[in-house]
Amino acid sequence: MLRIAVLGAGRIAKIHAANVAAHPNATLVLVADPWREGVDALSTQLGCEAAYDCAAVLTRKDIDAVVIGTPTDTHIDLLLAAVAEGKAVLCEKPIDLDIAKARSAAQAVERQGGKVMLGFNRRFDPDMLRLRQALDAGQIGAVRQVIITSRDPGLAPRDYLEHSGGILRDMTIHDFDTARHLLGEEPVEVSAFASRLVDPSLEQIDDYDSVMVLLRTASGKQCHINCCRQAVYGYDQRVEVSGANGVLLTDNHRPSTLRHWSAEHTEALEPLQHFFLERYADAYRNELTQFIDALNSGRALPTSVRDGLYALHLADCALESVKTGRSVAVNYGL
Amino acid sequence: MLRIAVLGAGRIAKIHAANVAAHPNATLVLVADPWREGVDALSTQLGCEAAYDCAAVLTRKDIDAVVIGTPTDTHIDLLLAAVAEGKAVLCEKPIDLDIAKARSAAQAVERQGGKVMLGFNRRFDPDMLRLRQALDAGQIGAVRQVIITSRDPGLAPRDYLEHSGGILRDMTIHDFDTARHLLGEEPVEVSAFASRLVDPSLEQIDDYDSVMVLLRTASGKQCHINCCRQAVYGYDQRVEVSGANGVLLTDNHRPSTLRHWSAEHTEALEPLQHFFLERYADAYRNELTQFIDALNSGRALPTSVRDGLYALHLADCALESVKTGRSVAVNYGL
Amino acid sequence: MLRIAVLGAGRIAKIHAANVAAHPNATLVLVADPWREGVDALSTQLGCEAAYDCAAVLTRKDIDAVVIGTPTDTHIDLLLAAVAEGKAVLCEKPIDLDIAKARSAAQAVERQGGKVMLGFNRRFDPDMLRLRQALDAGQIGAVRQVIITSRDPGLAPRDYLEHSGGILRDMTIHDFDTARHLLGEEPVEVSAFASRLVDPSLEQIDDYDSVMVLLRTASGKQCHINCCRQAVYGYDQRVEVSGANGVLLTDNHRPSTLRHWSAEHTEALEPLQHFFLERYADAYRNELTQFIDALNSGRALPTSVRDGLYALHLADCALESVKTGRSVAVNYGL
Amino acid sequence: MLRIAVLGAGRIAKIHAANVAAHPNATLVLVADPWREGVDALSTQLGCEAAYDCAAVLTRKDIDAVVIGTPTDTHIDLLLAAVAEGKAVLCEKPIDLDIAKARSAAQAVERQGGKVMLGFNRRFDPDMLRLRQALDAGQIGAVRQVIITSRDPGLAPRDYLEHSGGILRDMTIHDFDTARHLLGEEPVEVSAFASRLVDPSLEQIDDYDSVMVLLRTASGKQCHINCCRQAVYGYDQRVEVSGANGVLLTDNHRPSTLRHWSAEHTEALEPLQHFFLERYADAYRNELTQFIDALNSGRALPTSVRDGLYALHLADCALESVKTGRSVAVNYGL
Repeated sequence: MLRIAVLGAGRIAKIHAANVAAHPNATLVLVADPWREGVDALSTQLGCEAAYDCAAVLTRKDIDAVVIGTPTDTHIDLLLAAVAEGKAVLCEKPIDLDIAKARSAAQAVERQGGKVMLGFNRRFDPDMLRLRQALDAGQIGAVRQVIITSRDPGLAPRDYLEHSGGILRDMTIHDFDTARHLLGEEPVEVSAFASRLVDPSLEQIDDYDSVMVLLRTASGKQCHINCCRQAVYGYDQRVEVSGANGVLLTDNHRPSTLRHWSAEHTEALEPLQHFFLERYADAYRNELTQFIDALNSGRALPTSVRDGLYALHLADCALESVKTGRSVAVNYGL
Repeated sequence: MLRIAVLGAGRIAKIHAANVAAHPNATLVLVADPWREGVDALSTQLGCEAAYDCAAVLTRKDIDAVVIGTPTDTHIDLLLAAVAEGKAVLCEKPIDLDIAKARSAAQAVERQGGKVMLGFNRRFDPDMLRLRQALDAGQIGAVRQVIITSRDPGLAPRDYLEHSGGILRDMTIHDFDTARHLLGEEPVEVSAFASRLVDPSLEQIDDYDSVMVLLRTASGKQCHINCCRQAVYGYDQRVEVSGANGVLLTDNHRPSTLRHWSAEHTEALEPLQHFFLERYADAYRNELTQFIDALNSGRALPTSVRDGLYALHLADCALESVKTGRSVAVNYGL
Repeated sequence: MLRIAVLGAGRIAKIHAANVAAHPNATLVLVADPWREGVDALSTQLGCEAAYDCAAVLTRKDIDAVVIGTPTDTHIDLLLAAVAEGKAVLCEKPIDLDIAKARSAAQAVERQGGKVMLGFNRRFDPDMLRLRQALDAGQIGAVRQVIITSRDPGLAPRDYLEHSGGILRDMTIHDFDTARHLLGEEPVEVSAFASRLVDPSLEQIDDYDSVMVLLRTASGKQCHINCCRQAVYGYDQRVEVSGANGVLLTDNHRPSTLRHWSAEHTEALEPLQHFFLERYADAYRNELTQFIDALNSGRALPTSVRDGLYALHLADCALESVKTGRSVAVNYGL
Repeated sequence: MLRIAVLGAGRIAKIHAANVAAHPNATLVLVADPWREGVDALSTQLGCEAAYDCAAVLTRKDIDAVVIGTPTDTHIDLLLAAVAEGKAVLCEKPIDLDIAKARSAAQAVERQGGKVMLGFNRRFDPDMLRLRQALDAGQIGAVRQVIITSRDPGLAPRDYLEHSGGILRDMTIHDFDTARHLLGEEPVEVSAFASRLVDPSLEQIDDYDSVMVLLRTASGKQCHINCCRQAVYGYDQRVEVSGANGVLLTDNHRPSTLRHWSAEHTEALEPLQHFFLERYADAYRNELTQFIDALNSGRALPTSVRDGLYALHLADCALESVKTGRSVAVNYGL
């Protein structure tokens, strides 16, 4: 049984803690967060210990692994401390919003041979797992073009956006990781357009709400990403990969298969699942299972801190492309 | 916290026991079955007590409710004993394969005011819940025609079939309950055809593998059920309800949304979910939740032992119709 | 070039006349109808001769074939006269509403070796042609169950209904022909329920608006037909054939593929095509092409007057089943 | 009756000639092409006059309008001569492959007030007509992002490609017109990547087979186009428009609605329609009808020679972007 501590008691940390508690091959030892009410309620509900000092927890001998679900600006310190104590780590994305800090953290982890997995939850979504499996099985031959549609149901609150690092680093970063995961080859060139079509006042915080990106790999594979902060019809997450022998497509999820034909319309289906907590519930569960399985079996973790670094770098390149109107070469010598 | 005992350690009982163990408002006190290896393994896995005498368990004071998941021919005795001890009961369908025994059991439960819920799991399927909700909301107005498609992925083993009571009582009985649930009015006339198109040797046990049934209610609402013991493309479970103002349709479930377009075909989707354990996993969970919620809140249980009686009677009428080539009037004075 | 006369100037006759005029291997010589305004307008539009006496037209030497699109009660007389003059005939269904008259007409045609094709337009629908082709290619192995959904967009006017012969002979008769076409074996037993759910006043003319039928062939293949005179969501025409190795399904047609996702719903499609003139426009064109091709090549016509007779007999059996509550044996010794 | 001459007897000209011949409000006077066998066969089939000198035809008084379906490098001369003679013109795209020639032709037509419609057939596709209508009706509010997928079934022959002007001017030019048609605002910035993923030897003729483009309008609306010369699964033509209040999507067409569920897969549909002659047959017919209707009614033609000029300019900008790796500003002062 792997003994796990969950750091954080917020929205994502609660999901991770519940998944650890329910996992047959892991024990939830404690949840830790300086926010006492949150951590007390969560530990009571899940029947585990409560702690208020995240850093102190990392020195305990009865803990094998930690899940970091605290605010982004605490990720690097907790990550490096956990690695120093020999703990395996599942860390929420992003590593940090600053590429220089993210790079030195990645290098530090790599020097010490730390076992760190980045929480790119979409790689663990059942649709994405099947898509990756179909690609590996050669169902469409060599990949040529990838199209990723990624739209949130609505604009996040302004105070969240102010500290988000901007749409490309906060939202599109997931899609940059998906692009790398599916292209099977690193993007070497980025081009991007960004607009404020939902809320023009985002100019005040130098952010955008609608983004279109192009990526190109060395051998010429292409990827298009389109992001928008608002889709009134629900959380829109679709992926298409076309290759030499065919195309693979994944679609949105709905709460049930019910269709309705009336005099006004036919085939009106249920609305899409609301947002990522609903849409990626299985992904979070699978992510944790793969983390635990890899640790128990000694196999490599499926995502690395370097994956986090590269996704952030792609976001920075896209932002530079938006500002300069030029395609930007990607630098993998980080 | 509702204290629950699960009777049985077989396929369905294991699902119920795991759902009880994971439920926030219930405690799994014990699992009981004369099959010692089964019950020992299950109780160890779920961290509860093991018992080997189902009847003895019913007298314990630390048990509020029991889930009966034992073989069909033990249902009535355990059910009546549990009711006599004042326990609430969630009993797997069918009550019994013999309509006379089922009727007197139903009457006994009703006389004693027993709290008994029949495990018609499909009523608790997310698709069916949404469909029922849409009907209740008047989305298609008055119901006119119901069409139920119900096909198993493959023929069950011969020794199972020999004790199953025949396709109409074993398999179509679910669809008879669905028909009653959706028509909103009792069927008063039944007509049916049955054939042996999958395995002609079923004649040796006087059973069939392919069935088509028509039902009619007093006001003229109509329902068609088609059942087959073998669908090579997977477990096929679809429902369509047409009404004065439109039609509602539910579709099969698949493990992911992945589609594949190749030179041979387009839109090849994943195979359907294999069989009922996969397809109705959520239904079993919802079923238990509604049982627990009803008991905790004092509300009526959502299915009754009489529901089980009527579904069995419809199966018997359909069988009589197959044998006589006449439509058969249904008798609700049972 | 096949020289064709079209008898009739009403709704269906106009479709046939335009298709003949546009066909590269046929010439539209004339259209004939006692209704002078109608025939004058139609002949002017299509650039052909106008005639006012249908019977007189049949003796002309410059006509090889006739399309009969006149009222049902004139079909037999024109049909037999045309056959007597050696003309090939494409006759709209039904032959007649009276089974005895239809039978003697069929027998007369067969005795004289007349070339008569019945206008069961659905057999020539692109979907049905592909379905039949897939069955012939063995894509699903031996057929087991057929399900036919057939709903009109709205109730026809009362004076039409009064002379229609009733829903089973007027509307379901198409589906009886489809059933025979797809089962690949004659139905030998019929069972049916009929109700008045759209318009209870249909009792005044001894008719129904909602019908469910079961058919069984000698080897046990089964077919379900459901018909309704009103589907507010549009003309609903779907067919499903399940066999030993899979299932084939056809779906409704829509004017375009446009889908709309909004805050209220997702996947709202265009309404279904309005009614049979739109839905089966291609079928009428294909029907005529197969008629002309068969005549030009000397191959057998794809539907016979006996097909019309058997479909009518099935309708009569279904009606008897509705009245008696018994399944009715079909008689193929007509 | 509008009297029309069709110039050309090749693949597209034959479609136009047949559509003119079948049109109730137009007469096909002649087809003209120096290729005698082609024009003789076509004129015989359609029952019209044959001519061998396209230019000579333009001076005839019995001709009101001409359809130009000759090779691209003859378009401008015939176009300007026809305008000089006061004929209305429906001209196949592109005007010319050279932007300077196209610009002076457009300016000449505009100076003379010539009635010239460019054959951007996709605008007349039933799906596109409905999409445009839904946008005009405000079904999704203000447009934000457009995504156009445009893939041919297979690489055209090398000698065609050598004179095609390259993938962007030959194939993507259709999508540039679609983008302009749907954005409702001119693109002002273009960014593009192009690769040789189907056939690396295209480098010999300085062409590409796989293209991804981004467009941006002055107000920030965005459009993505992806093109590929080979899609083994068939001709892939999809459009998606997302707006403030929802999204509209059009899908590919198939010859029938037949679906097949087998042990290997479910929902395998028919292959997509083969290529543009099948997919856009209705579009060509609608295009001609709108040309004839506009001329007969005196309304403006739905596409102009300037539309052709702008689409070509966008293709040139995209090509420059591919070569320079920069986004390129669009110049509408042409």
